[in-house]
Amino acid sequence: MQITDKTILIIAPHTDDGELGCGGTIAKLCEEGNRVYYIAFSSCNHSLPPSFESDTLKTEVKKAIAILGIAAENLILLDYSVREFKDNRQSILDAMITLREQYKPDIVFIPSSHDIHQDHQVIYEEGLRAFKFVSIFGYELPWNNLRFNPGLFVKLSKENISKKAEALLEYKSQLHRPYLDKDLVFSQARVRGGQLAAVYAEAFEVIRIVL
Amino acid sequence: MQITDKTILIIAPHTDDGELGCGGTIAKLCEEGNRVYYIAFSSCNHSLPPSFESDTLKTEVKKAIAILGIAAENLILLDYSVREFKDNRQSILDAMITLREQYKPDIVFIPSSHDIHQDHQVIYEEGLRAFKFVSIFGYELPWNNLRFNPGLFVKLSKENISKKAEALLEYKSQLHRPYLDKDLVFSQARVRGGQLAAVYAEAFEVIRIVL
Amino acid sequence: MQITDKTILIIAPHTDDGELGCGGTIAKLCEEGNRVYYIAFSSCNHSLPPSFESDTLKTEVKKAIAILGIAAENLILLDYSVREFKDNRQSILDAMITLREQYKPDIVFIPSSHDIHQDHQVIYEEGLRAFKFVSIFGYELPWNNLRFNPGLFVKLSKENISKKAEALLEYKSQLHRPYLDKDLVFSQARVRGGQLAAVYAEAFEVIRIVL
Amino acid sequence: MQITDKTILIIAPHTDDGELGCGGTIAKLCEEGNRVYYIAFSSCNHSLPPSFESDTLKTEVKKAIAILGIAAENLILLDYSVREFKDNRQSILDAMITLREQYKPDIVFIPSSHDIHQDHQVIYEEGLRAFKFVSIFGYELPWNNLRFNPGLFVKLSKENISKKAEALLEYKSQLHRPYLDKDLVFSQARVRGGQLAAVYAEAFEVIRIVL
Amino acid sequence: MQITDKTILIIAPHTDDGELGCGGTIAKLCEEGNRVYYIAFSSCNHSLPPSFESDTLKTEVKKAIAILGIAAENLILLDYSVREFKDNRQSILDAMITLREQYKPDIVFIPSSHDIHQDHQVIYEEGLRAFKFVSIFGYELPWNNLRFNPGLFVKLSKENISKKAEALLEYKSQLHRPYLDKDLVFSQARVRGGQLAAVYAEAFEVIRIVL
Amino acid sequence: MQITDKTILIIAPHTDDGELGCGGTIAKLCEEGNRVYYIAFSSCNHSLPPSFESDTLKTEVKKAIAILGIAAENLILLDYSVREFKDNRQSILDAMITLREQYKPDIVFIPSSHDIHQDHQVIYEEGLRAFKFVSIFGYELPWNNLRFNPGLFVKLSKENISKKAEALLEYKSQLHRPYLDKDLVFSQARVRGGQLAAVYAEAFEVIRIVL
Repeated sequence: MQITDKTILIIAPHTDDGELGCGGTIAKLCEEGNRVYYIAFSSCNHSLPPSFESDTLKTEVKKAIAILGIAAENLILLDYSVREFKDNRQSILDAMITLREQYKPDIVFIPSSHDIHQDHQVIYEEGLRAFKFVSIFGYELPWNNLRFNPGLFVKLSKENISKKAEALLEYKSQLHRPYLDKDLVFSQARVRGGQLAAVYAEAFEVIRIVL
Repeated sequence: MQITDKTILIIAPHTDDGELGCGGTIAKLCEEGNRVYYIAFSSCNHSLPPSFESDTLKTEVKKAIAILGIAAENLILLDYSVREFKDNRQSILDAMITLREQYKPDIVFIPSSHDIHQDHQVIYEEGLRAFKFVSIFGYELPWNNLRFNPGLFVKLSKENISKKAEALLEYKSQLHRPYLDKDLVFSQARVRGGQLAAVYAEAFEVIRIVL
Repeated sequence: MQITDKTILIIAPHTDDGELGCGGTIAKLCEEGNRVYYIAFSSCNHSLPPSFESDTLKTEVKKAIAILGIAAENLILLDYSVREFKDNRQSILDAMITLREQYKPDIVFIPSSHDIHQDHQVIYEEGLRAFKFVSIFGYELPWNNLRFNPGLFVKLSKENISKKAEALLEYKSQLHRPYLDKDLVFSQARVRGGQLAAVYAEAFEVIRIVL
Repeated sequence: MQITDKTILIIAPHTDDGELGCGGTIAKLCEEGNRVYYIAFSSCNHSLPPSFESDTLKTEVKKAIAILGIAAENLILLDYSVREFKDNRQSILDAMITLREQYKPDIVFIPSSHDIHQDHQVIYEEGLRAFKFVSIFGYELPWNNLRFNPGLFVKLSKENISKKAEALLEYKSQLHRPYLDKDLVFSQARVRGGQLAAVYAEAFEVIRIVL
Repeated sequence: MQITDKTILIIAPHTDDGELGCGGTIAKLCEEGNRVYYIAFSSCNHSLPPSFESDTLKTEVKKAIAILGIAAENLILLDYSVREFKDNRQSILDAMITLREQYKPDIVFIPSSHDIHQDHQVIYEEGLRAFKFVSIFGYELPWNNLRFNPGLFVKLSKENISKKAEALLEYKSQLHRPYLDKDLVFSQARVRGGQLAAVYAEAFEVIRIVL
Repeated sequence: MQITDKTILIIAPHTDDGELGCGGTIAKLCEEGNRVYYIAFSSCNHSLPPSFESDTLKTEVKKAIAILGIAAENLILLDYSVREFKDNRQSILDAMITLREQYKPDIVFIPSSHDIHQDHQVIYEEGLRAFKFVSIFGYELPWNNLRFNPGLFVKLSKENISKKAEALLEYKSQLHRPYLDKDLVFSQARVRGGQLAAVYAEAFEVIRIVL
């Protein structure tokens, strides 16, 4: 199977979730000529340390996705408040339906069914409702997963994973977070690659695939 | 996502299981220029009514797969005894490993994890072991499934499903079996299509996909 | 096992869900002399096209259930707003407890645990809480189910399914919805029947049965 | 729902499993006029202490089922060797198919999908294959269950449970087994009853119900 | 494995849930010298019959936990309204994070993933988020569990269970509730003990253990 | 929770499986003064390249476990044939029961329920039957796991993981196997550690814990 000439939405609850969950795969999909859009539902003031300006995350996400190969005009930043997505679920669903009508995606990446973060759960649940007639994959965020059910494995080059690690380093305001560690990024890709007798890979939950 | 220019193994415990489980999808994959092989692990005397000659099923499977678009030279018939696969599991695994080395498939179709037929269970379990580094899908056989977990949906044309129904009618020695009914074949495709707001589809369990 | 002389509640999030999920079974249960009540938690203005009067759905549901054999006085219409059930869950639970005390049902039909519609999820979850000491079955709505776990199969006559299809055709304001298609209704019944070596059936998730 | 005038098979891997798993329910079903048959696939020398004669278990099972209300002529004793059912699975399946053709049961009770005893697993798996077109329930044997999924609850009178405990006491050759303890039998029934705000019940896994 | 010299939080949605779910285990953990804290998120007016004073439950919980061996100063009573936890989930999570920072627990007991009570579901879900880096166990409340997945079994003495039953009897304002019945408390402990060839035990869902 | 002064069995289908699945944990358990035994059910000629002598694996396993801290006299080597455990399951169960009676273990480590290797499945299934009254954990072997359900996390020092990697390097006859790679060993420990905001850990399926 291959993914070429497709329209793909990377849906991130907060900036950086998309890179963490599928940074290597984004790099590969961009290389192979797909149309990749990055949508973050919360883009600013996300637990920002006091020394940073308020639009720091907006600047950081632009740099990060550029490294992965997504054009600046393919970034959509929405402004839902962190930790309050549950109170806005119908509005978030309506926003997703608007995205669906506008971009007509073939494939959508969202957090997985096993993600325990309160905002990620909302993006997962509303994502199912909005996109159930196209392919949906759930990305892995071990920090938030008590368990995970990997169905899709995307084999990646060392360069793909290097770009992922580099992209994450653009989030200078977030570098105190243990899960942004470069060694951890490579370790996770190595373990998923090892399951295929390959070197590096990212794994995804298969929610639905439509061919 | 699309499947083109791939090597694909349809693994059937007994002749007719491959057509029942993925007949429409085989027709589509052949149309789209993939290399499709059909392997049946038991090919003759499968509960054959007395009025039929002993190699009837071998003749029938050839006609059936020809309708779906598989060339005669892509048919591999093995001779394990019906209902006794459990006693031959290591030999069946060895045969699968030989197939893997010879054909180097990208995608393999086997019965699903929910199939309760004793021989189908063996093909499922040994199939996992033999092919775990490539894409594996489990096909739906409602007659043998108490439940089913559909992950991959393949949208199909009416012509794809017509070919499936026609192919099954080539099994003249088996037409007393209720699950070969043409109306049932179309009904199942219609229900799976309806889940996508489409007309016809076949659904598969996603065991593992490797890109 | 049989169901006779029982009090049965069909709980529909919106008018038409009960007919879609268990129309054939309702017809059979009425024929066999049970006391069947139909409760819809949202009864009007449910995405009604502009050319229809505001109480159109109230009229349609009455005609639909009459075809299935439910007396007009056994219809209870509540007025929760579509897509906003999550904000009213405690009130919906209280309404269910009132129904339970008033009708003392033996059996309750609700959407299944696998239904992804936001309002259906509320009816499922509150239904568990309200009715956990009696028999509860979850009905199948493939349009809203990524998967389904069928435990109870009710074999049905062709006439039962014809009544279901006819009842759905009474929803003239909703006929643009693909899942009301008569061919689809018959196909689904045929597939579930085929799993029993029968012709037609409806399948239900068994949440709890109490004998 | 009710069960009356039905033909019911209680399938026990070894004598005493049927009483342990559904003794109270058997008593109730017999009271209510059903035709109940007890089939044990291994009936003698089942870890019999040396002081007992070799046909002790045959005598004990007759006394036990008489207490529950099953007529002696409704007992079928087969002679598969304890702990070796896995080597005889096709023969056991064939025996079940013979039973099915002879008795045409409406309902069959077998060990549950969660039973970890090697012989019970065979009876469960072959039971699915033989009886998939009728109602099948899996009975609870906590000694052999790491977990259990109760779907059907049968409310029972104190007398029903007393008969179960009494029946088990007829297995004088087995009284060293901790799970035959009368207090344990009543405790289990009390816990399952407590889940319904009732006093006593037995719980079963619902494998499939056909109405 | 053993639990000694640890800091343990018993988190109860309402007073009495902690005793019901893990009363025997609390008694044992206290005996063995652990630091056990009891936190109830709703402590008063919990469906209190009219003849009782409004702070009755506060008095009762103190007496109950004293019997189990928890010091009065280890009781933390919060005041969320019964049945409205879902509207206060972020506040409840914040309260849990405060508890985590203050007590730095090694082990936390919360309701299980299978609990269907609306408030218990909130304590479970927020509990996962707050405590995911330490050991978390889910306690069994059969009244609220359609099913349960027991992983951890704690063997208990008869005295441990007697204390549990006694503690529950201190809830004089709640004695009309069927699940406080002493016979039921002993029966449940007996069944879980029986699964280990022991006499009494309590069982818990293992959410995560960290050594 | 802690594990001290306990008797622990590491059960490996083949030499090296125990080190791969729980090498770091073994090192830690030995350090902390537990009595750790290593049992391999197949110890020689395990796909040995032709240039090695036939007792090579016996020598290698001794060196490997010595590095982890297990005394030579705590090694038990049995001689079942690779890939044929399924034909010997009752004999393997009997051997386990003998081990249980002789060592009276508190904790047993076996392959997980998700392991798809044919021999590992036998050790898992018979292990459940033999050891169900004590604590049982399933170890992770990503090469053989399509998915995994981690319940127990054991935090480990860098030295623990270094010993694991070193022990695996003693299997000089197996170094062509991709899963013995030192980088992969560290990566897996790093990912599991990362899930706890720690550095290194091993994860295990919790089958049953008895306290």
